This record gives sequence, C-alpha cells and structure tokens, in this order.
Amino acid sequence: MSALPASPTTYSLFDHLICSACRQPYTPAVLHTLSPCCHMPLLAQYTLTGGPDKRILLHREGTMWRYREVLPVFSAAHQISLGEGFTPMLGLNRLGAANGFSDLWLKDEGKNPTGSFKARGLSMAISKAHEYGVEGCIIPTAGNAGVAMAAYCARAAMQAVVVMPRHTPKAFQEECYWYGADVHLIDGLINDCAAKVRQLNSSGQWLDLSTLKEPYRIEGKKTMGYEIAEQMNWQLPDVILYPAGGGTGLIGIWKAFREMQQLGWLPADIRLPRMVAVQAENCQPLVDTWLGKQPNAQQYNGKPTLANGLAVPRPIGEPLMLNVLHESRGLTLGISEADMVDSVREIGKTEGVFLAPEGAALWTAARQLLRQGWLSATDRVLLLNTGNGQKYLDNLRPFLTD
Amino acid sequence: MSALPASPTTYSLFDHLICSACRQPYTPAVLHTLSPCCHMPLLAQYTLTGGPDKRILLHREGTMWRYREVLPVFSAAHQISLGEGFTPMLGLNRLGAANGFSDLWLKDEGKNPTGSFKARGLSMAISKAHEYGVEGCIIPTAGNAGVAMAAYCARAAMQAVVVMPRHTPKAFQEECYWYGADVHLIDGLINDCAAKVRQLNSSGQWLDLSTLKEPYRIEGKKTMGYEIAEQMNWQLPDVILYPAGGGTGLIGIWKAFREMQQLGWLPADIRLPRMVAVQAENCQPLVDTWLGKQPNAQQYNGKPTLANGLAVPRPIGEPLMLNVLHESRGLTLGISEADMVDSVREIGKTEGVFLAPEGAALWTAARQLLRQGWLSATDRVLLLNTGNGQKYLDNLRPFLTD
Repeated sequence: MSALPASPTTYSLFDHLICSACRQPYTPAVLHTLSPCCHMPLLAQYTLTGGPDKRILLHREGTMWRYREVLPVFSAAHQISLGEGFTPMLGLNRLGAANGFSDLWLKDEGKNPTGSFKARGLSMAISKAHEYGVEGCIIPTAGNAGVAMAAYCARAAMQAVVVMPRHTPKAFQEECYWYGADVHLIDGLINDCAAKVRQLNSSGQWLDLSTLKEPYRIEGKKTMGYEIAEQMNWQLPDVILYPAGGGTGLIGIWKAFREMQQLGWLPADIRLPRMVAVQAENCQPLVDTWLGKQPNAQQYNGKPTLANGLAVPRPIGEPLMLNVLHESRGLTLGISEADMVDSVREIGKTEGVFLAPEGAALWTAARQLLRQGWLSATDRVLLLNTGNGQKYLDNLRPFLTD
Repeated sequence: MSALPASPTTYSLFDHLICSACRQPYTPAVLHTLSPCCHMPLLAQYTLTGGPDKRILLHREGTMWRYREVLPVFSAAHQISLGEGFTPMLGLNRLGAANGFSDLWLKDEGKNPTGSFKARGLSMAISKAHEYGVEGCIIPTAGNAGVAMAAYCARAAMQAVVVMPRHTPKAFQEECYWYGADVHLIDGLINDCAAKVRQLNSSGQWLDLSTLKEPYRIEGKKTMGYEIAEQMNWQLPDVILYPAGGGTGLIGIWKAFREMQQLGWLPADIRLPRMVAVQAENCQPLVDTWLGKQPNAQQYNGKPTLANGLAVPRPIGEPLMLNVLHESRGLTLGISEADMVDSVREIGKTEGVFLAPEGAALWTAARQLLRQGWLSATDRVLLLNTGNGQKYLDNLRPFLTD
C-alpha cells in the first residue's frame, strides 16, 4: 500500500482522523479500521477555517463529488464513481395537504446507483481503498450495502465478498452476482453475517467494510447533509426523519451540518433540524435504549423486518446516534410492519414514488408525531427515503392484493 | 379542457406543431394525437432564432427541466416531476481499453425515476396533459413506459390504465400496482396491447399515450440529446449506439441536435454523430427494412425477447427512424439473445453497471462494428443504456449460474 499525503491539499481539506470516543488523533497516511485506543469508530477531520466559499458549487458536477474539499479522497484519479448523489428533493404537496402538513419534502435516495443511499458510502470507501491500493473488500450486509459494494468493487477492479442473511430478497443477491461478487448466505441477521465475515477474513486478506469499522463510508453518507442544505437554498428543514439501522447517515448528516457551520456555509447560530431516528418495531434497539429498557443495545435481539435495512440489532454507532438525538432535541420511535406497507401504498398512489419500506416507515412516523403535537403543521419536514422499492418486491408481494 | 397560449412565452419557446409527413402546421392551443392530415406523428416546433444563450444552464436544476425554453410546457405549475433526466455520463475506461476502444462512454438512463429513459417522455406527456386538464391516461407498453406512466399519473392525480404483455417480468406489473394503476395483461406483443387499448378506450375517456401518437413524449426524450451535448462540453460523440424499439429516443436525440444548431448552442457546420439503431434479432423490423427484405415494417411479425423494450414489431416511427439513419450516415443491426446476456455480465463485472438487456445489446453491437472496421479505435463512442437491469431479473435468472 502506498503512503498518502499527511496534510491537506487544495483538492481535499482532509487533515486527520480522531477516535469518536476519546478524540485521539490518527494520521490518514495509513489505512485504519476501528480506533486502536478505544476500539470505536474513527471520524475524519478537515481544515475548515478559511475553506472555500460555497459559490464554488455553481460549477461542480451533479454528484456527491461536488463537495470534494470536505471529502477524504486526495485526487480525482481515485474517484470510483457511478454518478452517486445529488438525488431529487421532491415536494410532497398533495400528500402533505391531505394530512395536515404544509411544508413536506422527500429526498429520494432510491435514485442512486444500485438503488439506495448505500452508494454514497461505498463509493467513498472504495475510492479511498483504491487510493490505499486495496485489492479486495468484504462486507456483512442487510442487502443494499452489499449490492453497492459489489458494483463499486467491479468498477474499481477489486474482489468483492458479500455476506447477507438468507432471507434477504433475491433481487439483492442476484444483482451482486451480475457484478461478479462472491455472495455468502447466512441464517440470521446482520450481526450473524458480521461473525461470518470475521471467520472468512481471519487472515485479513480483504478490507472489512462493516458499518463504521472503516472511517470513510460515513464521509460519503454525510454528503446527504450537504445536499439537503444546498438543495433547500441553505434554509434547513425544522425536522428530518431518517430510518436508522446502522445509523451512519444520521451521524453523517449531523456531521455535515457542523462542518458547514465551521466553513461559514451555514450561520454559526442557525437552528439545526431536530433529528428523528425511525426504526422497525421488529428491531428497535435504539428505541429500547432511548426508553431506558436497556443500558445499551449490546445484548439486543431483533427479528427480521420487511425493512431489511433496519434489522441491525446491535449497531456499533449507537452512542453516536444517541448524541445526535440529544444534541438536536430529537427522538426515536418504532413502526409496525403493517404501517410500513400502508405507507408504501399511500405514497406510491399519491406521489408516484415507490419507497423502500425503510423510507415508508418515515411517513407513518411523521403522521404519528403530528397527531401527538411533537410536529406542527407549519414545520418544514423532510423524509429521507434511503432506497428504491424495486428490490423489496419479494417482501411486498403478500400485500399486493390488499 | 382549458385553452393554452397559442404563441411562445419567455418560459417556453414552443410555437406550433407540424405533421412529420407533410409539415402542415397545427396550433398547440388544443390537445392533438396523430396529424389529422396524414395520420402521422406531430412534432413540436419552437422559435429558436434569437433564443437564449446556453450560459442560462449554469443556474438551472439538475433535471431535464433545465431546458425549459425548448420544452412544450408553458408553466412550472404543470411540471409533473420526479427528478427525471441529467443522468450520469460514465467513462468506460477499463472495458474500452480491454477491447480496443480509446474513448468509450455510457449514458446511464437506468438512474431515472422508475428506472428507465421512459421517465422523460412520460413526465413530459403527463405534464402537458395536466396543462390541458386531462383526468386519465392509457398506454400499451412493453414494460418501462407503463411503469413510468403509472408513477407520473399518481403524482398528477390522474387515473392510469396500463396494458402490457403477459410475459412481461413481474417487476413491471407489480410496480404499477404500487402506484395504483389499473393493469391489463395481454397474450402477445405491444401491437396486441395497442389493439386492446383501442378497445378499452373506444369512448375516448382516457388520453392514449401510445408512442408518437401524442406529440409530447418525444419532447421529453429529446432532452437526452441536449444532455449528451452539455455533459460532453458541447463536443459530440462520433457515434451513438441506441436500442431502438419504438424509436422515440433516436428521433428525439437527432431533433435535439438540429435544434441546438438553430439555437447556436452547436455550430451549424458541426459533424453530427453517426446514429446506430440496435435491435434484437428476435424482433428486428427496422433491420429487415434497412436490408431491403420488406418495403416497411407494417406486416412484420416479431418474437418476444429478453429485451422487452425491443419487442416492437411495427413501430409507427419507422420512417422517422430511417431518416435519422440516412441523414447521420448510420446503420441498424440485430443482436442475439445470448450476446445480450454476455454483455450484461461483462459490463456488470467490469464497470459495475447493471444494464437492461436493451442497453447491453449496444456493447455487442459496438464490438461487432469495431471488428468490421465501421468503428475505429479512436472514435468517441457513446452507448445509451435505456434502463436498469433490476426489473429484468426474471428474464436473466435462467443465466445466473452460467
């Protein structure tokens, strides 16, 4: 593996990594996984004071790479891109009006390459891996991350090993095949897949891209936060609802808001959105911790859900997610399987968008929070749909004739 | 239905329609289908001399609506949009280098809403229908157009009736359901579906959105031509390979090039690309006419193909497609089913893009044309992939273990 710049360039302002628990700094000149100090996720830090004016964006391409100064890749030669990011921001006027919302929005991540928000994180991680000279990657996945890794590894000429639950819809498994990935099916949830990854990769021959175990997927995910600000003309929503499994996007969006304040792209005294982490009742570790039913999720046992991406019983990013909820005055709640299906149907019929069950859960949550008075009719509310419904047809088929 | 402006506005330079056969003009103040004079497609005409400078695009949104002056919709209030257009333009460097191409590109229309280029045409047609006060639409489809119509009708609060061959992959049928469309399955190909549409719509209660039977789908499709020019920094490819079923895109892209010459966005003496219409051997009406095996396709009988969108045995736009091939010094050729599957796999494994079989056929065609010397190694070659492979998993499943 080649040594990389240890200090910021004009291309990227990436400076160093810190441990998310104790803030110990680490050099980006070598490839890291969890922090050696605390065994916790590492976070990328940039030299933001004196950074560029946001007017630079006017001439940039319509992908997440438009924010290259605040991304960790040091050269365009290592961008492994399929056109990810800068996804549509859609007004849901009809749906909103019929349900008492006057300012309702959807960011549709289903329009990304491979059909989900996972494209952002994997494009970034594989680009960075390419820069480090990595030749193969392995990942435990609930579905979408595996498909994305398979696609970007193909584009980068790297080997790809994907480990997913056997009950994952066939669409995910088969798409991996068409990218030439090696797919392993496991009885269990994503934590069981993670155990299999450790076993397969005991020699360390592949780079392990498990959520937050390497520091760069979150840097791709955070671009959602930059886009929310830019696409809303630097007027942030009052509330963002986000389907939280591993939670990288939730943490990343919040990181983006903080970075933009440092850059001066957002005022230092701006009122940041309240962040809502939506989970599936079948697997709601964060909700149970939030409600004080457990000290943390480290022993939580979840059940499968139609929203495969939410079946993450023991997320390593839990403390970081809880920080975001506290700092933003947000909350977390769980949604039933039946309610998700109802919301898929309602948004499909009313707005012409076929959401993943993960994204549909947000709509149920929004209505509940409005009814409870936590949301008000005039709040600007953003639903962040993480994936395209297409890959979930297997899951949704039993409900077709309702 | 409401009367509309009969003359151009600053918002849109749309002026009138003409019959594509005899050039008889028609007013856009009322809704048209085929030309009353010749029963042929109508084409939208704009006041292009003295039109805007292309620098206006710098401040426009990243969708096909950035070209609003050369689109037929008279007001933003009628834009029924899900974020269609401005799809990725990807360099295929690894695939090209391994196969003797030095300048190979892919425009990936699979990243559109509902997963295909059909989103452009249907967004435009439904927007225009909305402007005319239409309350419901009907369409015969090989799959993708039906899904797109269902989505945009939902977004516009219009009724949607979709008629597709029974052998169409379930993914297309089921997605229509989630948008609330009424779906009819027919034994046969798209021409048999068209007959069913005429029967169901004998009272004329729905707007018939059959390819080229209404004048506005092509206006959405032509935006691919504008994007090719803009994304390639106004340096056009030498050759564009396009999978031609109904052919609206082929005709539309050529129309866009001619319009840009009139606008001064492209030099009047620019060498325009040679256009290649790629078909499936199982259904190659255009190829047979081109080779002199039949006077035209009006009695052609095709067979189903894995590339559902190419199973269009008797395209009404045949004369317009042949014009484009002649004017551009292009040609047409047919590709076997096995070759399409090989190309899906090769592009998936090498570049991380999961193409529809329609798009994959282009790659087989490009290699054949290079071998024959019709293409040269230094030609800038653009493959226009029309859809996402996701919806074709049913078709491709038998080849999974090859």
